[in-house]
Amino acid sequence: MASSWVPDIDPRSDFSLANIPFGIISTADDRSPHAAVAIGSYVLDLKVFAANSDLTAVFPGINGLTETFSQPTLNAFAQLGRAVHRQVRAGIQDLLSTDTAHPSILRDNADLRQKALLPQRSIKMHLPMEIGDYTDFYAGYHHAYAVGAMFRGPENALQPNYLHLPVGYHGRASSVVVSGTPVHRPVGQLLLDPSKTGPKQPVTAPSRKLDIELELGCFIAKGNEMGRGIAVDDAEEHIFGYVLLNDWSARDIQMWEYVPLGPFNGKNFATTISPWVVLADALEPFRTSAIENKTELQGYLKEGREKSVFDIRLEVDLTTAEGDTTTIGRTSSKHLIWSFPQMIAHHTLGGCPMRAGDLLGSGTISGPGGVGERGSLLEMTENGKKQVLLYGMDMRTFLKDGDTVTLRGFCGPEGARIGFGECRGRIYSSLQS
Amino acid sequence: MASSWVPDIDPRSDFSLANIPFGIISTADDRSPHAAVAIGSYVLDLKVFAANSDLTAVFPGINGLTETFSQPTLNAFAQLGRAVHRQVRAGIQDLLSTDTAHPSILRDNADLRQKALLPQRSIKMHLPMEIGDYTDFYAGYHHAYAVGAMFRGPENALQPNYLHLPVGYHGRASSVVVSGTPVHRPVGQLLLDPSKTGPKQPVTAPSRKLDIELELGCFIAKGNEMGRGIAVDDAEEHIFGYVLLNDWSARDIQMWEYVPLGPFNGKNFATTISPWVVLADALEPFRTSAIENKTELQGYLKEGREKSVFDIRLEVDLTTAEGDTTTIGRTSSKHLIWSFPQMIAHHTLGGCPMRAGDLLGSGTISGPGGVGERGSLLEMTENGKKQVLLYGMDMRTFLKDGDTVTLRGFCGPEGARIGFGECRGRIYSSLQS
Ligand SMILES: [Ca+2]
Ligand SMILES: [Ca+2]
Ligand SMILES: [Mg+2]
Ligand SMILES: [Mg+2]
Ligand code: NI
Repeated sequence: MASSWVPDIDPRSDFSLANIPFGIISTADDRSPHAAVAIGSYVLDLKVFAANSDLTAVFPGINGLTETFSQPTLNAFAQLGRAVHRQVRAGIQDLLSTDTAHPSILRDNADLRQKALLPQRSIKMHLPMEIGDYTDFYAGYHHAYAVGAMFRGPENALQPNYLHLPVGYHGRASSVVVSGTPVHRPVGQLLLDPSKTGPKQPVTAPSRKLDIELELGCFIAKGNEMGRGIAVDDAEEHIFGYVLLNDWSARDIQMWEYVPLGPFNGKNFATTISPWVVLADALEPFRTSAIENKTELQGYLKEGREKSVFDIRLEVDLTTAEGDTTTIGRTSSKHLIWSFPQMIAHHTLGGCPMRAGDLLGSGTISGPGGVGERGSLLEMTENGKKQVLLYGMDMRTFLKDGDTVTLRGFCGPEGARIGFGECRGRIYSSLQS
Repeated sequence: MASSWVPDIDPRSDFSLANIPFGIISTADDRSPHAAVAIGSYVLDLKVFAANSDLTAVFPGINGLTETFSQPTLNAFAQLGRAVHRQVRAGIQDLLSTDTAHPSILRDNADLRQKALLPQRSIKMHLPMEIGDYTDFYAGYHHAYAVGAMFRGPENALQPNYLHLPVGYHGRASSVVVSGTPVHRPVGQLLLDPSKTGPKQPVTAPSRKLDIELELGCFIAKGNEMGRGIAVDDAEEHIFGYVLLNDWSARDIQMWEYVPLGPFNGKNFATTISPWVVLADALEPFRTSAIENKTELQGYLKEGREKSVFDIRLEVDLTTAEGDTTTIGRTSSKHLIWSFPQMIAHHTLGGCPMRAGDLLGSGTISGPGGVGERGSLLEMTENGKKQVLLYGMDMRTFLKDGDTVTLRGFCGPEGARIGFGECRGRIYSSLQS
C-alpha cells in the first residue's frame, strides 16, 4: 500500500489508507448529518470536499455524488452498487496518497484541507444507514453448539434444522444505535427461580442477566424485487459493507418469553453497531474458509466460492465504572458455519424483499477454544455458574450498571490495518421500575 | 349520524359518514401518492382539497395540513396526535354532511367537487404508512389454544408464559403490502414427511401448506423515547388507527425453521393490509371486554379501562380461480386476550422505541366455536387432515395457486357502518424453482 500525506497516522490505526470506511458525521460547522471517510485520526468530510472540488477529475463518469454525500445516511451511496463503491474508494485512496495523481485537489490545497480534513475528536458520529429491517442470524457454530449443550445437553445441542439452513430471526430496527449511545438496563418479565417446579410466577424487574453478543453486521447495498430471490453467487453484489455489532441480550427476559415465537423484549431494547462501514472490497484480501459443514446442502446454499468468510481479529473489552479495562474475549470472524451470501440467499428464498440499508447480524461469534474465545458472557460464565475475572480481582457473571463493553475488530499488518473502530456501549440503570 | 350530500352512498358501505378512514392514493392527474379519505364509493382527495380551500375555516388552529396531506404516507399526519385526528375527522364529517356549517367550501362548490371528489374505481391505493417496524402478536386466545392443542395436546396447549404476557415476535416490514398486491407462493425448505423418524432431510420446494391469518393491525401515531416505556393507560394516545391484516403463512416452511428463534421465511414473504386506516376514534363506540384472563397480571399490564377491545365483525372469503366465492370464516375482533394498549405497554417495557408508522398485528383471531369461526386454514382443516368445503363442491386444505383471499370487517348499523374495505390477495405460482 502507498503511504499517505495525512499527518500522524498511527501504524496500529484501524483507518489506514488501505481501509477508507464510510460513515455519517456532523460537525461544529454543519450539524446536518452527512458522509465522510476515516483516515488515521482524521475524517475527510465528503460533503465539504464535494462542494469545493471538481469531482469529475477524481471520480470520472460518476454523477450526483455531491448530492449523495449530503444525505443524512449512506443509503443512496450504497444503492450505487459495488462498482461505484470500488471506484470511489480507489479515488479517495489516490487523493490521500503521498504520490497522488491529483496533488492540487487536496494534498496541496491548504484551504480545502483545513475545511474538509477534520480531527475525529471534533466530530460526532451518527447511525450510518437508515435500517429498513434488521435480521439476526445464528451462524456462529461454536456459540450455537455451546448454548445448545448448556440447555439441552451435548447430544441435542444443535436443532435438526441447524446444519441445513442459516437459522435467523427478525430483529428490531428502531433500537439499532451507533457506538457510544447509552444503553439502559431493560426491565422485563422474568422468573427469579426458573428451575422451581409447579406453576411459573414471573416478576417484573430489571434484568439480572444482561449480556453481550459479539457479532459481525452486514449492510445491504441493493435489494431484490419481492417474489424473486437473490442467488447465492449473486449475493456479493448486494453487499455494501460490514460493521461490528453488539446484540445486547437480557438472558432472563429472553428465557421466559421466547417460546414459541423467539426472542423479543430480551433483545429489542438495544443493538449497538460501530459507526464506520468497512466496504466489502476492503475485506476481500482477508477471505478464508467457513467452518466445514458436512451436511449435503440444498442447491440454493451451494456457493461457487470456497473462501466465503473473513478472518477478522475480534476482541471484547469490559471497562468497569472505576475505569479498569479487561479484554475478556478474543476470537475471529471466521468461526461461522454460514456465509453472508448464504444468509442472503436463504432470507430471500421465499421472495422476501431486501432493501438498501437492511442490516444482517452474523449471530454470536465464539471460537472453538476455551472461555477466552467466547462472544457472550452466557458462554464465558456457563449461564452465571462461573465468574469472569477482571482487572484488580473484580468479577462478573453478567453486566453491572456502569460497565462499558467495547468490541474491536481488525485485519491486516501494521501500517495497512483494516479495522472498524469501536463498537461501544455503557450500561445505565433502568429508567423505569 | 347526519346524512351526507355525497351521492349514492350504499347503506351497507364500509365508508359511511360515521367512518372517514384515511388512506394514500394516486390519481390519473397526480401520480404522486398523497392523502385522501373514503366516503361511500368516492374518495375526497385531501391534497387537492387543501390546495384549493382555506383550511383555517374547517380546521381552526391546525397549521401545515396542506403540506401534511401532500406527503406520500400518513406518518406526518399520524404524528400530529389524537386531538388533531379527532378535529380533522370531525371537520371532514361536517363538510360532507347535508347540513354542513360550511356549504360554500365543498357542498356547493361544483368546481372543487369535480376536482377533489373522485370515484374509488378511478384511483389507486398505496401503503398508507411508512412502516419502520412490524411486530406480530399472538393475542387470539382461541387460535393459540387450538394450534397448541393440535401440536402438543390440550394439557400443554398454552405455553407457561402465554397468560402472563402478550407473546409476540418481530415481523418483516419490507414485505407488508397493500390490498390487491399479488402474492407469490414462497419456495422454502420443508420436510415432505415430518413424522418420519431418524435424521431429517429437507427439500427445497414451493410451500404445500400456504395459509392465511386473519388479524387486526394497529398503527402507531407517536413513539416513545428509547429506554422509557409507554404506560398501559397512556397507550391509547399512541394509537393512530386500525387496518385488517392477513399474515400469510407457509406452515411447512415455518414448522421446519422455527426452532429455536421463531417464524422467519414461513412469514416474511408477504403480509397484506387493507388500504384505509380507520381512526382509533371511529371505533370507540364498539368497545367491549376482552377474553377474561384469570391470571394475576403484572402491574404494567393492568388496564384502567375494562372495555379494552373492539367488537368488529370479521369475515374471510375464498374466491377460486373460476371466480366462485365462499365465506369460509366469520368471527369478531373481540376474541383477544390482550388489548393493543397491553401489547404496546409490554413491547416498550424494556425501553424499545416505537415510531410513528410502526405496525402491530393482533395475532390470528378465531372464535370459540366451530370450524366456521376460525381465522386460519390450519385450524379449519386441522393441519390438512380435513377439507374446507367451497362453493360447487370444490375443496381446500391449504391455498391453491389462483385462489384469492379477501378479509372484510365492519361494525355499526346500516347507514352508519364503520368498515375497512377489502384486504385482498391473490396467490400466484412461485417465481423461482
Ligand atoms: Ca444475536
Ligand atoms: Ca400471525
Ligand atoms: Mg439486540
Ligand atoms: Mg406475514
Ligand atoms: Ni442479483
